[in-house]
Amino acid sequence: MAQQHLDPPTGPASGPVSADALADYLRAQATEFLRSLRQHGENGAEGAGAARARTRPGDGGTEEPGDAAGALRRSARRISGTLHTFRPLLDADWSERMRPELAWLSGTLAGEHAYAARLDRLLLALHRLSGAPALPAQSTGAAESAGGGPRAQLTAPDRGSLTVGAAKAGALLERQLTLARTRAHSAALQALGSSRFHAVADSVAVLASEVPLTPAAVTADLRPLAASAEERLTDAVTALPLVTAGHPYNAEALIHGLSPDPAPHPQDAPWHQVRLLLRLHRYAREVLHGGHVGNSALDGRLPGAGRALNRHRDASEAAAAAAAAARTPRIAPATAYALGVLHADQRHEVEAARFAFQQSWQRQVVRTG
Amino acid sequence: MAQQHLDPPTGPASGPVSADALADYLRAQATEFLRSLRQHGENGAEGAGAARARTRPGDGGTEEPGDAAGALRRSARRISGTLHTFRPLLDADWSERMRPELAWLSGTLAGEHAYAARLDRLLLALHRLSGAPALPAQSTGAAESAGGGPRAQLTAPDRGSLTVGAAKAGALLERQLTLARTRAHSAALQALGSSRFHAVADSVAVLASEVPLTPAAVTADLRPLAASAEERLTDAVTALPLVTAGHPYNAEALIHGLSPDPAPHPQDAPWHQVRLLLRLHRYAREVLHGGHVGNSALDGRLPGAGRALNRHRDASEAAAAAAAAARTPRIAPATAYALGVLHADQRHEVEAARFAFQQSWQRQVVRTG
Repeated sequence: MAQQHLDPPTGPASGPVSADALADYLRAQATEFLRSLRQHGENGAEGAGAARARTRPGDGGTEEPGDAAGALRRSARRISGTLHTFRPLLDADWSERMRPELAWLSGTLAGEHAYAARLDRLLLALHRLSGAPALPAQSTGAAESAGGGPRAQLTAPDRGSLTVGAAKAGALLERQLTLARTRAHSAALQALGSSRFHAVADSVAVLASEVPLTPAAVTADLRPLAASAEERLTDAVTALPLVTAGHPYNAEALIHGLSPDPAPHPQDAPWHQVRLLLRLHRYAREVLHGGHVGNSALDGRLPGAGRALNRHRDASEAAAAAAAAARTPRIAPATAYALGVLHADQRHEVEAARFAFQQSWQRQVVRTG
Repeated sequence: MAQQHLDPPTGPASGPVSADALADYLRAQATEFLRSLRQHGENGAEGAGAARARTRPGDGGTEEPGDAAGALRRSARRISGTLHTFRPLLDADWSERMRPELAWLSGTLAGEHAYAARLDRLLLALHRLSGAPALPAQSTGAAESAGGGPRAQLTAPDRGSLTVGAAKAGALLERQLTLARTRAHSAALQALGSSRFHAVADSVAVLASEVPLTPAAVTADLRPLAASAEERLTDAVTALPLVTAGHPYNAEALIHGLSPDPAPHPQDAPWHQVRLLLRLHRYAREVLHGGHVGNSALDGRLPGAGRALNRHRDASEAAAAAAAAARTPRIAPATAYALGVLHADQRHEVEAARFAFQQSWQRQVVRTG
């Protein structure tokens, strides 16, 4: 890790960064993966309940710092992303085998939390749209000690202030997303018990001690590969409709709100893609700078941009969940109406997130460009 | 009218403005009222059809320059507003009798146009939300020569691109708002044939030759009364939540979107009030400056602020119409869903209009304050 200390802490690495930094980073992430796995085994029975209680709904992210499954996913994503960005320096066969397995794992582990967070987001929105008094910030935290689960606590005391439609829409979403969450929970448990998972864990255990670098890696500089990751990000951002996004109330995000197309939001895809590229860029910077990120003007803006894109993704998926719930057969018109309002609300959240991203990004360009 | 030529054209009147200007203005408006009334009698059978064809939907206003009923309302509003602002200078009995009658008249005449404009706004929004190709700007203009009415032309060619829900929602709104418009049309015709209306027209005819000023008016300066109108406006604007409105995507306007309260938008009332006060201020400036308005920095911003408030009012009422349509018994869930999306969309238009007002107003204050 001595390499990083030679870099100026406030900017990109100014001298070459050797593959040692890559090996150090991968080893550290593999170790973190194994640590989270042990911790998950110890309190795995808790499921995502504790994780959810520690998540602050409404901050737009689906990161859950306190929880073992989340930590497992975080290191799996970092290993996978790093293998991708620095693939010319790593054993190709091993890397090609490893990445889809890590993707499968983090995808499988992500579902439960994602459904729970989506439900929280939608129920909070239903409350907001009903003009109900704002929920105290601790309400989800308070659920940590209760057995009933945070959602019951979120809605029960205020149900009286909802219309019949909003209450029924909430109950329908709760039913559908709780079912999805339960299924995701079972799938995750099954995955963690599978031989496929044990093979991944074994590979990661090897990685924690021995990173399979190519012979060429010995003399390589990591910076060009990290720069390519940044370039892919900035190219993708350039292709976004940022001028439109920077004009508030451009009404773009809801433009297919009533489209007969069942997958009506191809406009979201480039933003989701930027979110992934931003993550890869962030991981590449972590490789180069170790823990010393967040000091430069660029680094300072990345979290804001990343949060905006998380919020974009979360709102996009919540809007889709509301639309899907509205297609449930035999629902009451009042329920459908509430789901329509909710869908549009979340699509406006999508638009708001794009605006927030544009604001963060422009500031970034102005400061560093 | 010589008075106005002494005022600098780029600012408020710098010297006293005598009551002659008030008398001139009222006479001119009364004359315009009588001219519009004659014109309305000549082509009254056209109804508001021609008026609507000349209205550009989506510009947020409900002013229809080309049409006699609109011109009649415009002068009725100006007479009424001027009687209010300058009431100490006018015969009190006469003024007190006149104002409610003018309000009744312009209210009665406004309905038909308002329902037609509301329907246009909602159908255009349904198209936009369905991702249908943008309607050509001339589509409503083209309807002028057609007998079928502009709305049929608006929707028929694109109906195939709407979901069942959106198409049914459109048909429901068309039914309800066309019925309301037809009733308003009958009410307006009835009003124009009533003895109550003839009494108003007679009063206006007297006003066209003889303005009943008080004895005190002879030596009075109009400026303090105009300044009071401006002060009432700026006070009301100060009480608006402009800081919130200036933060895009504040999600305020939809906060009661699903409220069980049947009249859930008391938050709109202060904005509607500012709209009326802005109008009174504008008329007072017209009295002081005659036709020479629009040169000062303040005057330059007033139209933008006024348009934003018209858009606010129109979107607020369109949102209410969508919500009301959703309460129709026995509608399909898909229809209710589309109406929910539409309601939320229009409430976001309300929020967008507040943002636009804030932007116009701040610019105004920066320039002149």
